[in-house]
Order: sequence, then structure tokens, then C-alpha cells
Amino acid sequence: MELWFTERHTPYVKFSINVDRQLYCGQSDFQRIDVFDSKEFGRILTLDGYIMLTEKDEFIYHEMITHVPMAVHPCVRRVLVIGGGDGGTVRELVKYNTIEHIDLIEIDELVVKVCKKYLPQTACRLDDPRVHIHYEDGLKYTRRHENEYDLILVDSTDPFGPGEDLFTKEFYGNCYKALKEDGIMVNQHESPFYENDAEAMQRAHKRIAQSFPISRVYQAHIPTYASGHWLFGFASKKYHPIRDFNSAAWNVLCIPTKYYNTKLHVGAFALPTYVEDILKAVE
Amino acid sequence: MELWFTERHTPYVKFSINVDRQLYCGQSDFQRIDVFDSKEFGRILTLDGYIMLTEKDEFIYHEMITHVPMAVHPCVRRVLVIGGGDGGTVRELVKYNTIEHIDLIEIDELVVKVCKKYLPQTACRLDDPRVHIHYEDGLKYTRRHENEYDLILVDSTDPFGPGEDLFTKEFYGNCYKALKEDGIMVNQHESPFYENDAEAMQRAHKRIAQSFPISRVYQAHIPTYASGHWLFGFASKKYHPIRDFNSAAWNVLCIPTKYYNTKLHVGAFALPTYVEDILKAVE
Repeated sequence: MELWFTERHTPYVKFSINVDRQLYCGQSDFQRIDVFDSKEFGRILTLDGYIMLTEKDEFIYHEMITHVPMAVHPCVRRVLVIGGGDGGTVRELVKYNTIEHIDLIEIDELVVKVCKKYLPQTACRLDDPRVHIHYEDGLKYTRRHENEYDLILVDSTDPFGPGEDLFTKEFYGNCYKALKEDGIMVNQHESPFYENDAEAMQRAHKRIAQSFPISRVYQAHIPTYASGHWLFGFASKKYHPIRDFNSAAWNVLCIPTKYYNTKLHVGAFALPTYVEDILKAVE
Repeated sequence: MELWFTERHTPYVKFSINVDRQLYCGQSDFQRIDVFDSKEFGRILTLDGYIMLTEKDEFIYHEMITHVPMAVHPCVRRVLVIGGGDGGTVRELVKYNTIEHIDLIEIDELVVKVCKKYLPQTACRLDDPRVHIHYEDGLKYTRRHENEYDLILVDSTDPFGPGEDLFTKEFYGNCYKALKEDGIMVNQHESPFYENDAEAMQRAHKRIAQSFPISRVYQAHIPTYASGHWLFGFASKKYHPIRDFNSAAWNVLCIPTKYYNTKLHVGAFALPTYVEDILKAVE
């Protein structure tokens, strides 16, 4: 038997993965959740039919959303993660002893339950005593917080469906307010390649650049996301991602990584000319 | 009607592009050649069913194979291109006035004919008077040349089928010999992500590192190649790709590019840790 999961990256491009079996299929109040097992990618989590992560390449996304800001901010104690119910971002964060408190705001409790059961590779550290999970809407949560976090990681789905609010000007303004005076926000920033993704990326960048004094974009190779070329937004009140980056300080921590390293940290901010052009048009 | 071109990136991963129509289909002595037209990628050239280029993203590959070495070597006059019958690499090379002579060694005359007819975007500069096309085997050609070229670009297919010889130790040794004392060779170096590609990449790197005193690898985002994460090998007798790189000198040339820029030049050599590990294992 052949069983293929297919995702449309655009109406004209399909990416298909041969799966051994479907391990889980459920419908929450917010979205459809599926887990598959596959030879090439190990376990795969999809939400509303879109790949959120695979065991083979999730390390790239989770390392890059976490370690880039952690290597810039000199002392992160309190972190807010919006989304990220799979636990991959938390797994990277708890590698830092300086972090005292992590609030994880996941709108969909079922995502956490399913990941704890089927994706221990990412969910393995959600029970760390520093981690506090709140099942509520990320936009609403940020309205009530002020001058509280050193770092906010927006580990959201795409800007349609449950993740839509996390790409609005109001949300970025709330994050600015919820950060301390030297706080950093990093968000998953979509892809520059296919037209619709690039438009979403440009819209997000415009709103973030209007909300934060420092707003830079960095890139990673994520094979199971559309086009494989994925971006992150680095928004900051005080620290510059390169000028305030202390590679020696990060390297002495000896944090194990498979993608991130301090040379790549700098390289990731060197974007192709066509991407720079899209960003500059709204800066 | 729906018409889909599908390429297997591995036995378990398929990448499919909706095509409007097939513009050409032919069989040469070496391979099957097809040209398609598509909404998402414009025209597409495939050889034996593998995507060689699409009009939408070919600029990334052709700029990165060409401009990285051109920005390092202080004065390139004679260039050898092995493969590259589509003309994209030549199109980038002829932007440099210093280049006096380009030998293009393409084993398959039909590829050039088809590209001249259906892919003017890449083949447009094959008639430049500095370009000399030789329809012969690249390995055999390099056996007869010594101390002749400033730059060799190995713009080959994958290490199976007609391109197989261009990944051998003998071929890299021939290239070393065909280069002048400060010559540079750049080759398409496969991908680090899927297992078979990564093995081919590691084998190539081992052979190149044994043949050249300086051997570094750099990366680009090429969405229509397997995993989107593609590598190039920079092999050199004298010049280091970063230490001998003169960004100011390149920028005054005002060469128009959409992907390459001098900041990205440096960034492209900053590889993920897992890729560095694969390379170091054979250095």
C-alpha cells in the first residue's frame, strides 16, 4: 500500500510525503490535528493539513527561533512563548540555566495533549518546573501584561486560521508593551519565495518595523516548509542582533545544537538581494 | 485539465509542479530532455526527469556559482565551464569585462539547441564572441589542458548518468592541473539534507579536499532542488574565499544581481553545525 500526505505550497505546487500510518486524527475547537509516522521524516504533526513539524527537521526551526535572541540578550530570565504547543521551543529554552520562568500561551489544549503523547521529541520538557502553560488566546494574553518579559517568541502558525491575530499591529504593540526596556521579540516570519508567502512576510515586517526601533530579519533552511527558505523576525527595543551579539559568551555555555552556531548567527542575517528589496520597500 | 510534473526527491518525497503544457520532449544520445511551461515557475528544463532549472529560481543557482569566485579572484581572464549548456552560468560570466575567453564544455549538443529555442532567459548570451562551445566529454577535455584557466565552474548534473565522471578524483585532479597557479574551481556540490544527497556531497568534498589546498563549502536557498538547501564547493590553489574576498572591488563593478550580494557572500560560508560535521568527517 502507498499512503501519501500532500500539502499545497501554492495552488500549483505540491509537496508529498510517503507515510507509514496515521497515528492520530482529531478536531479541536480551533483546528484539525493529525500525526503521521513516516520513513523519511519520522513523526509529522499537521494542523489543518499544514506541516507544523517533522522529527527530521524540527531542530532547525526550534534552534533558530530560540538561540539567536538568547545569544544577543545578556541575561534572559522571563520568557513568553506564544503558540509553540508542540514544546520544541521550550525544549531549547530550558537548556539555559539563567531562565527562571517561561509562560507558554497555547490557544489549543489538544495540541499539547497530542504532542505529549505522540511527539516526545519536542514535548519532552513541557513538564519542566519553570514552564507555565496557559490555554488561552495569545492576543488577549498580551493585552494584560506590561514590562514583564525579557524575551517573547512568537511560535505561531501561518497568518490565517487560529494564528491570524498574531500577525496584527495590535499584537506587536502589545508585545512591545509586555517586554522590559531591553526586551527582544522573535517571530516566525513566513517565506520570501512564493508570492502569497512573500506578501504575508512583507505585511508582518511593516507592522513590526513600525512597532520596534530595531527590526531585522534572518533566514534558515527548513526543508519541509514551503520553498525551504524560511525567515524569522528579530524585533528589539535596545539590542542589535549583530552588534550586541556576544559569541564568546554563548560558546562558553556549551549548549548542544545541530543547526545553530555563532558563525551561522551572523551569516543568517545576510539576506539575498531580492529579500532585502521586499523588506526595504516597507521599512 | 490538470497536468502535474513530479520529481522524487527521495523514494518517499515527491515535489510536484502544475504545468500548462509540455513545450518539448526529446531523447539525445545522453539523456531525455523536456521543457514545460508552468504558472508558478515559468519555463522548466528537466533532464531524465530531474529539474535542472526553472525561470523563477534559476537566478539563485547561476548567480551563486559565478559571482562568489569572481568576487575573490582579482583578475579572471580565462574561464572553463563544464556542463552548463543552458547558458545561465555564461550569462552571469559575460557581465564581467575582464573576462576574455570562456570555454563551455557541454557533452550534449541537443541541450544547447533546446535551450536556445525554449529558454532564452538563460541561453541569451551563448552567442557572445568570448564564448566557445565544445561538444565533448568534460572529463576528457580536462585531461588535455594545463595551466590555462583562472576559473573552472563545474555546472554539472547529479553524480549519476552523464554527470557521474564530474565527481571523480581524476576529474578534480585534472581541474587542478588545468588551472593556473592561483586558479579557483567551483562546483555544484549537492545537498546536505536527504541521506543519499548528503553522501554524494561528502564523497565529493573528500575528493576535492584531497586535490586542493583550500576547500570550503557555501550554501544557497534553491527552492526547486531537493530540500531547497543546496551547496557549492569552493576549491582553490591560493585564494581564500573570505580572507581574499574584496567586497569593495566587486561592488564598484555595479553588476546587477537578485540573490548575490557581498554581505551574503560571507554569510553563505557560515554552515549549519550538522553540515560542518559531515564535511569535517572527511577533511
